[in-house]
Amino acid sequence: MTAAPRWDSLWIDVNAATMTAGGAPYGAIADAAVAVKDGRIAFVGRRADLEAAPESLATTVHEGQSGWLTPGLVDCHTHLVYAGNRAREFELRLEGATYEEIARAGGGIVSTVRATRAADEDALVAGALPRLDALLAEGVTTVEIKSGYGLETDTELRMLRAARRLSALRPVAVRTTFLGAHAVPPEFKDDPDGYVDLVCREMLPAAAEAGVADAVDAFCEGIGFSAAQTRRVFDTAKGLGLPVKLHAEQLSNLGGAALVAEYGGLSADHIEHLDEAGVKAMAEAGVVAVLLPGAFYVLRETKLPPMDLLRRHGVPMAVATDCNPGTAPVTSLLLMVNMACTLFRLTPEEALAGVTRHAARALGLSDRGELREGLRADMALWRIGSPAELAYMVGFNPCAAVVNGGAVREPRTS
Amino acid sequence: MTAAPRWDSLWIDVNAATMTAGGAPYGAIADAAVAVKDGRIAFVGRRADLEAAPESLATTVHEGQSGWLTPGLVDCHTHLVYAGNRAREFELRLEGATYEEIARAGGGIVSTVRATRAADEDALVAGALPRLDALLAEGVTTVEIKSGYGLETDTELRMLRAARRLSALRPVAVRTTFLGAHAVPPEFKDDPDGYVDLVCREMLPAAAEAGVADAVDAFCEGIGFSAAQTRRVFDTAKGLGLPVKLHAEQLSNLGGAALVAEYGGLSADHIEHLDEAGVKAMAEAGVVAVLLPGAFYVLRETKLPPMDLLRRHGVPMAVATDCNPGTAPVTSLLLMVNMACTLFRLTPEEALAGVTRHAARALGLSDRGELREGLRADMALWRIGSPAELAYMVGFNPCAAVVNGGAVREPRTS
Ligand SMILES: [Zn+2]
Ligand SMILES: [Zn+2]
Repeated sequence: MTAAPRWDSLWIDVNAATMTAGGAPYGAIADAAVAVKDGRIAFVGRRADLEAAPESLATTVHEGQSGWLTPGLVDCHTHLVYAGNRAREFELRLEGATYEEIARAGGGIVSTVRATRAADEDALVAGALPRLDALLAEGVTTVEIKSGYGLETDTELRMLRAARRLSALRPVAVRTTFLGAHAVPPEFKDDPDGYVDLVCREMLPAAAEAGVADAVDAFCEGIGFSAAQTRRVFDTAKGLGLPVKLHAEQLSNLGGAALVAEYGGLSADHIEHLDEAGVKAMAEAGVVAVLLPGAFYVLRETKLPPMDLLRRHGVPMAVATDCNPGTAPVTSLLLMVNMACTLFRLTPEEALAGVTRHAARALGLSDRGELREGLRADMALWRIGSPAELAYMVGFNPCAAVVNGGAVREPRTS
Repeated sequence: MTAAPRWDSLWIDVNAATMTAGGAPYGAIADAAVAVKDGRIAFVGRRADLEAAPESLATTVHEGQSGWLTPGLVDCHTHLVYAGNRAREFELRLEGATYEEIARAGGGIVSTVRATRAADEDALVAGALPRLDALLAEGVTTVEIKSGYGLETDTELRMLRAARRLSALRPVAVRTTFLGAHAVPPEFKDDPDGYVDLVCREMLPAAAEAGVADAVDAFCEGIGFSAAQTRRVFDTAKGLGLPVKLHAEQLSNLGGAALVAEYGGLSADHIEHLDEAGVKAMAEAGVVAVLLPGAFYVLRETKLPPMDLLRRHGVPMAVATDCNPGTAPVTSLLLMVNMACTLFRLTPEEALAGVTRHAARALGLSDRGELREGLRADMALWRIGSPAELAYMVGFNPCAAVVNGGAVREPRTS
């Protein structure tokens, strides 16, 4: 009788970009071995350091054909669940329509709110699946999804339930974020503070009560909510024990990032107009900077996030799709890695850390984002010669396999 | 005994974006029927105008689930065949390396020339296939491929043969372009005219003799070849009966577009620095403007092509990937449609015409690029609600099926 192998599975004939900081670039290990046991990473090291033949060490041996294994990608900022789309608005704008004409044609976030309110949970799930599948095909294993197109209690909760259901339908971990304070709904157009009342007294408590939100977000901006209104939302979140994050400093500097820091929040997102005081506050509080180059690209912005300040003060930079129907109809996280390099001048290593280690941290998840013993066995295998190729190519997907908690799947799930 | 059906296949439950000009936007036909006979389109019209039940009219009836049928996409400007990649150079630049450091690390076009010269035909084909597959997955049915990384006779011809072989390995029509005058090779560094001699006396005649080139291109630029040198290449092409096209006015205005016009050529490509005189010359000679937003994006250019002048003078605008390892490692034509809109402000309809009707014209092909009776049955079926969605989404591929000369394939060939 032979003893059961030590590990469930073992990857060999791979190079590993562990993304663990402090050692080689990308935490790279050439000719590596990565073992999985009970859904966790049980060994990461050089193949030469294996103590016995692979077949004797694991029930299943996967040969990676000299590809690269990375942590599964984490998309830490999306609005993936919504109904309708805004292609007609996109087209009208390019045809020279005025803002009024677009509004008359039903454009803007209001159109997404209307369509989302009219969609039942099944329809929201069905609409989100193709977008989710596009992300998963590129090695995404964890995705954050926000509410924010209901702007009333029922629809906000329905969006969050739909988001949670996606993780039952696809091999992906979903983290949900309540974003009731995304925009002022038409019915509160003349009473934004009244809407913030509703968010704080009814919507957010209901989301917490239903247990469908992992965090709370808001849109702090001249065209969104003031710092004072955001503070009220954050106070409510704090009272309910939910961590906060913020759409901050995208179009102007309202001090939103410092506000997140004050509340010990997870991340400040967008931050093109962030100043050094805000960067310092983030650094001291351990707030992650989430860069969203897709929205920057779509809106043809020119003001870059303060990358040098973020680097100097040691603020971790994550990168995400911001997938949403208005300012970023983006379903490729790899393209965001390229745009983070091309538009924001991140190095490929920074951009890859931005969709792995730092993205996990932006979600408050310490159990993923690196290839390290004890972490979840969420991994992606790539047909590439070097990790930099993931950032260099534009619109190319070299994903060969994805591993979710140890289970291997083909990268194309649709 | 029943008579054989009139058509080989018939598509119903589809909307058609025929891309035929002069009628509805996109040449759209709602609830359309498209029939195929002997690899050609035999009928395009309203389903309601079919004279009998679909099953009685065609051997095979395809139901499109209310998707949109468009002409197969045409990528009319690529450098798809090459060896190696330039990910390390991309990375070095973002890490702040100087031009000299990159050159010392073997960067630049010279590195691609070295790798391509060292690759045999099988290696060139194997290297190009994943890039080609990425294009094909997005509904591309015709692709242009240039030589230009050999810069000596053997390798230039080997590149063109490799390009031709791709069409035997995949369901795609390939048009090859001789681009010997792409750059001055290291061995002629001090004698560019001597290299042009070689191109005109040996390389181009050899390519024509071997029958591996459908057209002739050159890189007319301060860092490439002068207008006078380009003229010599064009004269040689003319003598050999090959149509010409040109990388023109990308970084400066050398009058390249007017030169193409003078030779009655197919297209002037890039043309960010084109002036009105050049636009007029193109209009009069029927030269197509090929816009390459991927290179514009990668190089972070700010000078836009003169779209308004091109529109005013009725110059057809095509859009292509420019897929190449240096300035556009791009394998998504749909992303280029989006970038043509986002960066160059084309309308979605213009951008879609740019990868269908006008792209076919840029290749001198009058038998494709529209859904019209008599043309090749090259088509793509999309899971979209409107054609504008093809331009609106970023990094999303809604291709549901592709038809090449009447034969249906799944969009994912790899
Ligand atoms: Zn957002
Ligand atoms: Zn080119």
